[in-house]
Amino acid sequence: MVGIGPGGAADMSPRTLQALQTAGVIVGYKTYIDLVRDNIQGKEIISTGMTREKDRCAAAIEQASAGRRVAVVSSGDPGVYGMAGLVLEMLDASGKLDDVPVEVIPGITSATAAAARLGAPLMHDFAVISLSDLLTPWETIERRLEAAAGADFVIVLYNPASRKRNWQINKAREIFLTFKEPSTPVGIVKNAARQDEEIYITDLENMLHHPIDMLTTVIVGNRSTRLAGGFIVTPRGYAL
Amino acid sequence: MVGIGPGGAADMSPRTLQALQTAGVIVGYKTYIDLVRDNIQGKEIISTGMTREKDRCAAAIEQASAGRRVAVVSSGDPGVYGMAGLVLEMLDASGKLDDVPVEVIPGITSATAAAARLGAPLMHDFAVISLSDLLTPWETIERRLEAAAGADFVIVLYNPASRKRNWQINKAREIFLTFKEPSTPVGIVKNAARQDEEIYITDLENMLHHPIDMLTTVIVGNRSTRLAGGFIVTPRGYAL
Ligand SMILES: C[S@@+](CC[C@H](N)C(=O)[O-])C[C@H]1O[C@@H](n2cnc3c(N)ncnc32)[C@H](O)[C@@H]1O
Ligand SMILES: C[S@@+](CC[C@H](N)C(=O)[O-])C[C@H]1O[C@@H](n2cnc3c(N)ncnc32)[C@H](O)[C@@H]1O
Repeated sequence: MVGIGPGGAADMSPRTLQALQTAGVIVGYKTYIDLVRDNIQGKEIISTGMTREKDRCAAAIEQASAGRRVAVVSSGDPGVYGMAGLVLEMLDASGKLDDVPVEVIPGITSATAAAARLGAPLMHDFAVISLSDLLTPWETIERRLEAAAGADFVIVLYNPASRKRNWQINKAREIFLTFKEPSTPVGIVKNAARQDEEIYITDLENMLHHPIDMLTTVIVGNRSTRLAGGFIVTPRGYAL
Repeated sequence: MVGIGPGGAADMSPRTLQALQTAGVIVGYKTYIDLVRDNIQGKEIISTGMTREKDRCAAAIEQASAGRRVAVVSSGDPGVYGMAGLVLEMLDASGKLDDVPVEVIPGITSATAAAARLGAPLMHDFAVISLSDLLTPWETIERRLEAAAGADFVIVLYNPASRKRNWQINKAREIFLTFKEPSTPVGIVKNAARQDEEIYITDLENMLHHPIDMLTTVIVGNRSTRLAGGFIVTPRGYAL
């Protein structure tokens, strides 16, 4: 299970590149396969649509069980809302976990890829929360949003919205506003480190005036987070 | 400000490598400089001890103000308890933020580097907390530990202990035990992806029987986290 980082080859580790190059079969969601297409010329590719994660895992396990070397591709890091967990779970459920050798190869995850484009918003304790309620009850997500805001974490939102799923980001903002000032800096990064990257530096008050979709990561500051020039910075606490 | 990832060249992005190779001056804590020594042959190096972050930043700013291209090196990602924030803060305080062009280059942070060695413990919402109370009041840290455990986040601990700072990890464990089962899986990774890597898979009950120091990242599961073979997995919620 390999992580390709946020976008192009510049942010992909040599370890991931080597795994792609030595694999016989590459399995992944089409968009991610396209991002690494240059590095996998001539290889067998098994790619399916967004919501077919289980199908992709089953195909990967079938190939690996047959002795082939398989790279299952995730964007960012494979262990952060990626494919690593599902592969391990399905291998375990099928009793093959002892037979098929597996390795998780980390990647630069969206939280830090987006943060780098905004300045340094993650310099202090932060919480990573997915707003997708497809697999998680909304009550659980809401409880985590409240806990993270209440304890003054910087908060990173993955899967903030999609065409069909759009009220969650409004609700999250409302929860944040019960704990955080409306002027709290918010950074929105779409397509971090990819072509068509978009970066918005805004605040809790105005964040919804910017485009937020499934290619976007949203970072909401803690009570010390501030703007410095065109950057968002969360001070670590040094006396300057 | 460049992140070199957890250890050796295999996990360092081409973007970081290029920044090191095109810089005239490399600034960083000695241990991190040593990790990239092969890539910076013949360059001017400004390196100081662990706690001299402000001195390093001041030196970097002085060099950059004089027109030199400077790479300030952090392990992992420079924006996660690294040097990116301090450089931006000090540039801002000295009024030079508009004059000195800066770029933050992300790296694979310890949370995902350690997670990859353990399996897939970060597949669901997680909180990243530093146990260092050198710059943060312990009350703030304690409040975050409680909030994160109470809302059933997976929890990643950076700076869990040092020779002089050893009670914080005991206290953190006590807090976790008021919310989480003693059998909750805990992963401990020392020197992830470096020589002398050590990996321990244990639980809240027994975690303190393993070495935990300042080269260690500790990951504590949520209520769904379980063992699968020799791995820790936090299910994302798919029906298998
Ligand atoms: C299913 S999750 C996969 C996360 C991925 N495994 C990672 O570690 O970044 C998809 C979400 O990741 C975020 N994301 C992925 N790539 C991104 C990019 N290049 N720029 C901004 N956000 C991105 C978005 O929040 C998106 O909704
Ligand atoms: C000052 S913080 C720097 C974190 C770094 N910027 C990052 O993104 O990983 C130092 C802490 O990072 C963690 N750490 C750094 N490198 C590590 C490695 N190779 N293995 C395990 N933990 C590591 C440890 O928790 C350590 O106490």
